[in-house]
Amino acid sequence: MQHISREMQSCIKECLNCYQACVSTAMTHCLEKGGEHTKPEHFRLISACAEICRTAAHFMLINSPQHKGICAECADICKQCAEDCERIGDMADCVEACRRCTESCRTMAAGHRAA
Amino acid sequence: MQHISREMQSCIKECLNCYQACVSTAMTHCLEKGGEHTKPEHFRLISACAEICRTAAHFMLINSPQHKGICAECADICKQCAEDCERIGDMADCVEACRRCTESCRTMAAGHRAA
Amino acid sequence: MQHISREMQSCIKECLNCYQACVSTAMTHCLEKGGEHTKPEHFRLISACAEICRTAAHFMLINSPQHKGICAECADICKQCAEDCERIGDMADCVEACRRCTESCRTMAAGHRAA
Amino acid sequence: MQHISREMQSCIKECLNCYQACVSTAMTHCLEKGGEHTKPEHFRLISACAEICRTAAHFMLINSPQHKGICAECADICKQCAEDCERIGDMADCVEACRRCTESCRTMAAGHRAA
Repeated sequence: MQHISREMQSCIKECLNCYQACVSTAMTHCLEKGGEHTKPEHFRLISACAEICRTAAHFMLINSPQHKGICAECADICKQCAEDCERIGDMADCVEACRRCTESCRTMAAGHRAA
Repeated sequence: MQHISREMQSCIKECLNCYQACVSTAMTHCLEKGGEHTKPEHFRLISACAEICRTAAHFMLINSPQHKGICAECADICKQCAEDCERIGDMADCVEACRRCTESCRTMAAGHRAA
Repeated sequence: MQHISREMQSCIKECLNCYQACVSTAMTHCLEKGGEHTKPEHFRLISACAEICRTAAHFMLINSPQHKGICAECADICKQCAEDCERIGDMADCVEACRRCTESCRTMAAGHRAA
Repeated sequence: MQHISREMQSCIKECLNCYQACVSTAMTHCLEKGGEHTKPEHFRLISACAEICRTAAHFMLINSPQHKGICAECADICKQCAEDCERIGDMADCVEACRRCTESCRTMAAGHRAA
């Protein structure tokens, strides 16, 4: 990964970290707790967040100039996921990972129409 | 898939069709022809197109309200991929799949800021 | 996809069909029904089935000789998913998609140690 | 990720590390060098390795008991990828990531028929 800028490497790391936090929180914590945690709105949002983080990391790894638009969408979804996880509570690690990813993706998306 | 609207089912189909066309064209036709076909710019674009199509289909399948932004990005990337494949030539199936997906994703993204 | 054998094209189709059935069933039907449908064991199995079907299709699309081992795993997981969906009930489309995919993947995996 | 065993967390890390090494090597180093690096056999193998590593990590993150079979396949493909990258040369980071992932996945797959 020597051809990838320091800033982009950091964003790939945050995206993969947030992907891991969202998938494992959904499939372990949320499924085991039930109730509010498996309501369709929340579960779809945390699943969407996992998927876009995985995709955003992939776009940066393949060195695609289109990563900016994807990072803009990723920042947007991570922000909503952080807020929803915080509202429900008891998912501090996931909130933290989503917040860090929002910031990092916003920086990468700078200059894009949807940033 | 009975809960998914007819329009969305059609867009999922176009996205998965375009994903298949891009991956198989890149990994068979492009790798075997070489030259212009494996130049980084082209190969990254067709790979990015495959990835965002796969992701857009996933967002619709999980019934995420965030699919609009993803479909807007997908339409954008498919359009660029169609143009680049047409410029290089000899990839008519891929051009056709990208064009159909562009149209379908634009319809799904209607009303989104980036549409 | 003209370079891909008829048999493999059919298996790609069954894998993508089963992927779609599993994701949409899990994220719409199961989340909305709750109870048995969101118990961790079932929800993880249907999610695992969606993921391996998506991956098996990808291996065939990239023309990888390693697709046989992946198809063997896919057949195995689809079989378990069909049985579990049938046990819980009310998921006939998903059961049918999993069964068809099991058969198709077994054919593709023929000759592999794990088939 | 507090519910995941230390050993599994380490394997997830190696899988995501190998995924990143394979994707970025293929889409930057290999595409820019050309020649032996974009020969179909090599490029398909490194792409297959990236995909199975991403999938193996996903299976462990969703806490699926089926991860053993996937890790067995992953170990197998990573081993072949390490050998092919070493044969071509000039991809030491990728070779190292593939070797570490092979070992880690073999440990996770212990007891599985294909291990």
